[in-house]
Amino acid sequence: MSNTRPIISQEELLESWQGHRRLTRRVIETFPEKELFEFSVGGMRPFSEMVKEFLAIAVPGLTQIVNDNNVEFDETRSEWKNKQDLLNAWDKQTEEINTLWSQISPERFHEEVNLFGQYKFPAIQNIQYFIDNEIHHRGQGFVYLRALGIEPPFFWER
Amino acid sequence: MSNTRPIISQEELLESWQGHRRLTRRVIETFPEKELFEFSVGGMRPFSEMVKEFLAIAVPGLTQIVNDNNVEFDETRSEWKNKQDLLNAWDKQTEEINTLWSQISPERFHEEVNLFGQYKFPAIQNIQYFIDNEIHHRGQGFVYLRALGIEPPFFWER
Repeated sequence: MSNTRPIISQEELLESWQGHRRLTRRVIETFPEKELFEFSVGGMRPFSEMVKEFLAIAVPGLTQIVNDNNVEFDETRSEWKNKQDLLNAWDKQTEEINTLWSQISPERFHEEVNLFGQYKFPAIQNIQYFIDNEIHHRGQGFVYLRALGIEPPFFWER
Repeated sequence: MSNTRPIISQEELLESWQGHRRLTRRVIETFPEKELFEFSVGGMRPFSEMVKEFLAIAVPGLTQIVNDNNVEFDETRSEWKNKQDLLNAWDKQTEEINTLWSQISPERFHEEVNLFGQYKFPAIQNIQYFIDNEIHHRGQGFVYLRALGIEPPFFWER
């Protein structure tokens, strides 16, 4: 980072991400069990698959950033079989993200990390990607809910 | 902002936003003319209406943040009649955003702004909302494209 004119602190970015994660959790809850795993539009993935992707990125990605080891990307976790499994994994990661976050030094955010052995960017850019990717796919989940005739949560409620 | 551990600079946030705006521009371009204004899923708005919302937020919102005056939210601009109108407005705002951005002092980002007379938050949170809202609705545009059998641009290409 150019040290000039910093406008977002480490604490603020975590709070923003966890706010988004609270909204994503509400979207998971809003899906009916069956449709969470089966429904989609336009040949896309069901929302559960997107949630598995978020879970495969967040804690594994932060773990690599903290420990500087190689972490495999694995979104095929077969133990997540129903909505409650996903919510439990989600809540577990909420705590793990807070713990890992406190272990990242400010300098570390601007070091390059070859995330999952394939995304070589400064850590901060990888983390912004984690968040943006979640917002992007959650927006798609909103369309699935609308197509099912179900009102999604309010976007601005975090 | 707590001044401790800042991790994103003013310049980095602008670059991130403009990267997202370049992707949104590609999504606008990818829509067929008619479907941009007429197609939607689940009773939602067509993508053109979302784009008008982005345009009603970005430059008007930044203008209020810079000048500290009251700005009306108006997404009903009737002069945007076709895809080329939207792309022209988009490109004009790209330049205007760069100019306005350079007029925001670092301190200003953490002052409260009652945006459009109704969203009273620190300027930085309003700006993060501008970006997150664009990512969210653009993700919905991706679903519209898939439902039309059209491949969207790559999400990671900025």
